Amino acid sequence: MNKKDKKGLWSGRFTEATDAFVAQFTASEHYDRRLYREDIRGSRAHARMLADVGVLTQADAEQIIEGLNAIEQEIEAGQFPWDPALEDVHMNIEARLTERIGEAGKRLHTGRSRNDQIATDIRLWLRAATDETVALLRHFQKGLVDLAEQEADTIMPGFTHLQVAQPVSFGHHMLAWYEMLVRDEGRFIDARQRMNQMPLGSAALAGTTFPIDRQQTCAELGFDHPTRNSLDAVSDRDFAIEFTSAAALTMTHLSRMAEELVLWASPMFGFIELPDRFCTGSSIMPQKKNPDVAELVRGKSARVQGALHTLLTLMKGQPLAYNRDNQEDKEPLFDAADALRDSLRAFADMIPAMSVNRDHTRNAAKAGFATATDLADYLVRRGVAFRDAHAIVGQAVALGVTQQCDLADLSLETLQRFSDAIEQDVFEVLTLEGSVAARNHFGGTAPAQVRSQVAAARDRLAND
Amino acid sequence: MNKKDKKGLWSGRFTEATDAFVAQFTASEHYDRRLYREDIRGSRAHARMLADVGVLTQADAEQIIEGLNAIEQEIEAGQFPWDPALEDVHMNIEARLTERIGEAGKRLHTGRSRNDQIATDIRLWLRAATDETVALLRHFQKGLVDLAEQEADTIMPGFTHLQVAQPVSFGHHMLAWYEMLVRDEGRFIDARQRMNQMPLGSAALAGTTFPIDRQQTCAELGFDHPTRNSLDAVSDRDFAIEFTSAAALTMTHLSRMAEELVLWASPMFGFIELPDRFCTGSSIMPQKKNPDVAELVRGKSARVQGALHTLLTLMKGQPLAYNRDNQEDKEPLFDAADALRDSLRAFADMIPAMSVNRDHTRNAAKAGFATATDLADYLVRRGVAFRDAHAIVGQAVALGVTQQCDLADLSLETLQRFSDAIEQDVFEVLTLEGSVAARNHFGGTAPAQVRSQVAAARDRLAND
Amino acid sequence: MNKKDKKGLWSGRFTEATDAFVAQFTASEHYDRRLYREDIRGSRAHARMLADVGVLTQADAEQIIEGLNAIEQEIEAGQFPWDPALEDVHMNIEARLTERIGEAGKRLHTGRSRNDQIATDIRLWLRAATDETVALLRHFQKGLVDLAEQEADTIMPGFTHLQVAQPVSFGHHMLAWYEMLVRDEGRFIDARQRMNQMPLGSAALAGTTFPIDRQQTCAELGFDHPTRNSLDAVSDRDFAIEFTSAAALTMTHLSRMAEELVLWASPMFGFIELPDRFCTGSSIMPQKKNPDVAELVRGKSARVQGALHTLLTLMKGQPLAYNRDNQEDKEPLFDAADALRDSLRAFADMIPAMSVNRDHTRNAAKAGFATATDLADYLVRRGVAFRDAHAIVGQAVALGVTQQCDLADLSLETLQRFSDAIEQDVFEVLTLEGSVAARNHFGGTAPAQVRSQVAAARDRLAND
Amino acid sequence: MNKKDKKGLWSGRFTEATDAFVAQFTASEHYDRRLYREDIRGSRAHARMLADVGVLTQADAEQIIEGLNAIEQEIEAGQFPWDPALEDVHMNIEARLTERIGEAGKRLHTGRSRNDQIATDIRLWLRAATDETVALLRHFQKGLVDLAEQEADTIMPGFTHLQVAQPVSFGHHMLAWYEMLVRDEGRFIDARQRMNQMPLGSAALAGTTFPIDRQQTCAELGFDHPTRNSLDAVSDRDFAIEFTSAAALTMTHLSRMAEELVLWASPMFGFIELPDRFCTGSSIMPQKKNPDVAELVRGKSARVQGALHTLLTLMKGQPLAYNRDNQEDKEPLFDAADALRDSLRAFADMIPAMSVNRDHTRNAAKAGFATATDLADYLVRRGVAFRDAHAIVGQAVALGVTQQCDLADLSLETLQRFSDAIEQDVFEVLTLEGSVAARNHFGGTAPAQVRSQVAAARDRLAND
Repeated sequence: MNKKDKKGLWSGRFTEATDAFVAQFTASEHYDRRLYREDIRGSRAHARMLADVGVLTQADAEQIIEGLNAIEQEIEAGQFPWDPALEDVHMNIEARLTERIGEAGKRLHTGRSRNDQIATDIRLWLRAATDETVALLRHFQKGLVDLAEQEADTIMPGFTHLQVAQPVSFGHHMLAWYEMLVRDEGRFIDARQRMNQMPLGSAALAGTTFPIDRQQTCAELGFDHPTRNSLDAVSDRDFAIEFTSAAALTMTHLSRMAEELVLWASPMFGFIELPDRFCTGSSIMPQKKNPDVAELVRGKSARVQGALHTLLTLMKGQPLAYNRDNQEDKEPLFDAADALRDSLRAFADMIPAMSVNRDHTRNAAKAGFATATDLADYLVRRGVAFRDAHAIVGQAVALGVTQQCDLADLSLETLQRFSDAIEQDVFEVLTLEGSVAARNHFGGTAPAQVRSQVAAARDRLAND
Repeated sequence: MNKKDKKGLWSGRFTEATDAFVAQFTASEHYDRRLYREDIRGSRAHARMLADVGVLTQADAEQIIEGLNAIEQEIEAGQFPWDPALEDVHMNIEARLTERIGEAGKRLHTGRSRNDQIATDIRLWLRAATDETVALLRHFQKGLVDLAEQEADTIMPGFTHLQVAQPVSFGHHMLAWYEMLVRDEGRFIDARQRMNQMPLGSAALAGTTFPIDRQQTCAELGFDHPTRNSLDAVSDRDFAIEFTSAAALTMTHLSRMAEELVLWASPMFGFIELPDRFCTGSSIMPQKKNPDVAELVRGKSARVQGALHTLLTLMKGQPLAYNRDNQEDKEPLFDAADALRDSLRAFADMIPAMSVNRDHTRNAAKAGFATATDLADYLVRRGVAFRDAHAIVGQAVALGVTQQCDLADLSLETLQRFSDAIEQDVFEVLTLEGSVAARNHFGGTAPAQVRSQVAAARDRLAND
Repeated sequence: MNKKDKKGLWSGRFTEATDAFVAQFTASEHYDRRLYREDIRGSRAHARMLADVGVLTQADAEQIIEGLNAIEQEIEAGQFPWDPALEDVHMNIEARLTERIGEAGKRLHTGRSRNDQIATDIRLWLRAATDETVALLRHFQKGLVDLAEQEADTIMPGFTHLQVAQPVSFGHHMLAWYEMLVRDEGRFIDARQRMNQMPLGSAALAGTTFPIDRQQTCAELGFDHPTRNSLDAVSDRDFAIEFTSAAALTMTHLSRMAEELVLWASPMFGFIELPDRFCTGSSIMPQKKNPDVAELVRGKSARVQGALHTLLTLMKGQPLAYNRDNQEDKEPLFDAADALRDSLRAFADMIPAMSVNRDHTRNAAKAGFATATDLADYLVRRGVAFRDAHAIVGQAVALGVTQQCDLADLSLETLQRFSDAIEQDVFEVLTLEGSVAARNHFGGTAPAQVRSQVAAARDRLAND
Repeated sequence: MNKKDKKGLWSGRFTEATDAFVAQFTASEHYDRRLYREDIRGSRAHARMLADVGVLTQADAEQIIEGLNAIEQEIEAGQFPWDPALEDVHMNIEARLTERIGEAGKRLHTGRSRNDQIATDIRLWLRAATDETVALLRHFQKGLVDLAEQEADTIMPGFTHLQVAQPVSFGHHMLAWYEMLVRDEGRFIDARQRMNQMPLGSAALAGTTFPIDRQQTCAELGFDHPTRNSLDAVSDRDFAIEFTSAAALTMTHLSRMAEELVLWASPMFGFIELPDRFCTGSSIMPQKKNPDVAELVRGKSARVQGALHTLLTLMKGQPLAYNRDNQEDKEPLFDAADALRDSLRAFADMIPAMSVNRDHTRNAAKAGFATATDLADYLVRRGVAFRDAHAIVGQAVALGVTQQCDLADLSLETLQRFSDAIEQDVFEVLTLEGSVAARNHFGGTAPAQVRSQVAAARDRLAND
């Protein structure tokens, strides 16, 4: 097939040429060309195998492989004559191959179909994207662990409902982010196993009548094993949906971090300063320095959700086996993978470079009666039932609200009006440092626990 | 500002250059350049108005307008030096303007901001996309109405649960599709009204201190009126979400049609034949002729849903006023609008060109006891309560299932065994033609009703 | 049909009883009973019409109507024997009717089907929900307009990117919320028109052979007109999707308000105080007062989006006409309508009752160089090109950052170092009040504009 | 706290009672009571641990545990006085406990918070739901494997684009479904690991000042280990999202099966007969027998997608730590889990009970030139390049279309007109049985391969 005869691949049964708009409407070459490397890699393995089982001559196979290598170089040099009239990446490459090497090129498509070919291409591409994601996640985790250690003793307000709840270690907060990313990583690693199975040999939907050796192509392409059912292999895209689900969850985590970064960078909080190189300004307001990177990541999280929606809905109604609907799977998948990669990279660079305004975070923790729970716990340790202690402290807080002062600023006499279990040592538990240090159990916010978790995280990152 | 000084737009307050990856991550020029025509149109109107109220000299305004015209030509000729380092379409054009006309170019951005500028650009663009959508919907409606008239007397099985339910007119079925599209059109027309309001003059978020004349720019740009609140105008994208909602619903309708086209073109149904020019074949199976256009439309409906998901989720958490998250609104919006336009065009072309296999549709209606309800109704007219009639016919059908014959093939004696209300004239109501013709009320499937609805539709399409 | 014979409605053709789990799996009575009032209302109209066209005797019709009235009272008294084995609301009521009035009850289902019956019920129900939504939206709008007037002169920081951008009027901010709700209202009003068309008479899918008078039932039920196509009328749920789209957009707006309420109620902002009666506390932290209502509304916005997703995806793949998938439309629709109604009510009550900490909002506006744009505009009025003015002010801001003081706190000499166009009168434009008052054009934030918009809103609310 | 003092849990700091509507709006007791068993189980473990570390007396702990046991029995007997005024399941149980056992009940909430309590409850509940899902998946897999063996030699048309592509074994098709479910199972097993970590001890957000022993509660509750970070543990719901993602994918698979069941049960296909006990009829059309179960499963797949959308969007914008938005996580999660469980159960029962109309499936495979690829492969084996063979066969098919006969019905002479490589033995490859048997490699559709995969599946199901 060559460009003059571009309808050749299925024209025998057809009596009129494709409508020009339909040709454009159905073409995918403008985005699936991104798979050229995987497509060529799969074709090389297929040709070698066909020769080894005797379907092709070794000479044909060698010609094909050399031709494909040359085409790969052409593409990478930007010199490949991509032609939308040839529909997709597969036909562009096959047509060019036949143009270059003649008859042997027409033999390459023996014992396979575009259906198993594209399923193989996407899996190869997505496997690499998964590996890159895992690497980025680990790089980001390292940055967070370093920051956690650096800010282990920094006190900030822990919020619930965006109200000041209890003082926590800034490092502990960074480790919360780290934990999210550890689970995210696990999801990609699990997804990789289900993804890394080889459809090649499933042909159009039923397998092929040629004596193919799927173990050979499987080994060459680095798959764990061949898929077990040809109908399933050419038609399901659950591996792509699983990747996108994991991406949507990771982006949800990044979006939560973004939300906090935007808050913290606001003058209303003033908790952090982002380096200028990660910020942008305004075309009209000369004073602005905006946390655009965080906002864009937050925005991109919506986009990855949209891609997941598309893929699930796309697949939901399809009978077996391949339907053309599936052509629409690639753009959302590419888009989700790109948004994920860029967002991870942006945050992995920016977050460890931010500086923490330790005075601001500490001062903020003082507002809002952050140690009220400590006072309740103190009363419990002196024999008051927790529910009663809670009510007592609630009254003390109400007085503090009226007098516009913290619990620590009330006199002992005043505090004792609420409970005679209170003594002079109460003021120790009402300090921020005392409060944080007292939560000294596995998973708690005490600086000692933060350091211990940092050490465990470093071990994990070193060993895995 | 020129390219050598591309950080000029907000660098006064910044002490380090933007990180190279961040510059790329935050750039939008590669997709928002699509708005160049609207951007230039808005800038021309803004410049003229600034001159008329005395903020610019008329000479400056003329220079600006000439410069913008020249830039528009440059872009359309493919000669514009787009530069991602200049972030977006606005800055690319403004920088080029200053490069071409000097000092006056730096005065254009007086009394506006990119925030009101982009809000204006998108509305202008989307208004045109809406008008194009309405035109396509009406074009498609016309094709369906013609087909409905042509197939008014064609009998096909009406399905519920994909089981044969009652015979219907093929033309009636086409008019069901027409009705969906009429409502879709209404939604776009309603959305246009809410969309066609002018944000320009809202500046960054609070309006401007210059004595602008918003009525003048509003009139020049064809908006219905200026927006009433600057904070709202620069920050909300509900008009874009409303468009995308309407697009998602329209695509849902197209997807339902697609589902039926795929069924009908399958040899299992054999109801229609699609012209070869709207089909594609297989790279491996030489006999295949696939209804790819319908499948792609079905697939694209998932994509537009994904875009809607993205836009809703993107907007949901944003405090006033503009946040950078909103930069992510354009790609889903463009994608949804493109998918909608192409799908409408593809179906408006293809569907009226399909041929109906009238024998197949008629034969299919005969399978499945399609006139059982007619028999029940017959009994009711002879005094049997409907619930009893229903039970009686159910038993007759059970016999037909056993004997593998239709109700019309049972003898009068056999039928009378189920009810003595049955007489010879029963066979008239058991015919397909009789059944269809009997549903002769407004909205019913009788060919006479189909023709009447066709006439009403033609009136509507002629007059609106 | 009675309970002992509950399979009666379709058992004639069936040879085995429904599987117990399937009976439970397919039953909808536990949620569609909510439509009982609409179902009975439709049945009354249907019976009256059947009698008027002579299909039923007037005596039968009267019996039926009395029976239905009695059943309605039974249900409202909580004494109706709902039975899941009777599948749905329709069959529960019909079976009970026959139980009460005998033979005439079996005649009611003449000339209709559950397909047009449920389509009619949902439209009646949703029309009422739409009217209630519009009333709530207007009630809420009134509260915002009052608050806007009350806080017209209150200065707060306008944010972009959650950075302080320019000072704005708090009343202006409330009017931004008002504008969102005005568009939301418009969407419900438009949706109502497309919804308010009567499917009754479409029967199963093709209309009926009885000489029904659809205009009569249409008038009795308050529909604008009968649907024009029976296949379309029983199968499409686009009207429900459109309602849910409008609900999702409204909830997106409420979620944006919620986001701001949570921020403003945080001690980091301290902009507002919510009355205790709208807040909840903590089971462990005695000092907490949480803006739970706002958070729940924000959460519920996600839920309404989920309902929209469900409905679009549910409908997307369905061929004509009715499929059982559509049974799944009711729970998401009910859920979305409930979440919308409760959220609107909660905010309409709470928001006008909040108190604004005017000192806090004003102080916050002073941080962040909020009048930098005013200085740039000042320079433009003295002949500096905007881009140059922007750069000059950027340098002044950089100095302010270093010296930790606002622009207004720099001396005239210092300011003149940046531009000799600056004179003593510059300090007027650097005040918050001056900045806000200067944006005095249609849509701008000046208190005079806020009052003018308040007046216009009151007119609109009084007249519509 | 008792019912008369129901605001006791946080009223100390509050000066007015909760608004009645707000109380109702914020209450969750009506759905989170479903977690009572997990809540009580967690409280028992917590009380035991508190006693063991000396925070409670053993006597108090015993009283608490006995009280909780009694409450559990009350609930299961339907005698528990649920009170929405007590907000949620936790407070209902705690209040009742204090009512029953007095002072000791007020001590139970020491060292914990509702934040870690609810996070623990959900994980316990979801772990059980996950285990049930896995069991149902395996039960369903077994049924498919049996059916696959039974229909290994049954020939049906394999479809692509719903056009007849190549003949396949019906058993092979069942194994495609089996493969989907195997991957689904894997996803739930992986999700379980990430889910099965214990938040208890994280308290409100920072841990507690009491000397708790998290390893003890962890062991008692069967968790793999305690969570490592308190902020993360109380605020993230990614484990619930992951479950729902896996559920959405599984439902997507079930929806695809449903789509095929609906097609196959349609008289247009006639491939299968579903037992009457899994079908329902029509209230108006006496002949109908509808595949409602399949349609409802297809519909419920949209619902689970909606739940996933809700959960992702709900979580996306939340800063640390707990926000009330998360209260909205339970209903979608419960809904998704219920829809999944019921759908799995319905299909696991129904699908193995369907009967295959082997004549219909075989006849359908004959239509549509299903062996055209076999002819092309035949030519390749005789030395024709595949692309040329493809073109040759396309022409033969075109002739068949014109003459309305299959390739096998063309004479040898006629076939030889297209290629002289064709000889008498061509007719062997043109038979359906020959075509299917020839695809005899790992993953192919040959009956021998089907049997081999059945054996492997049985091994797997026996051993895991």
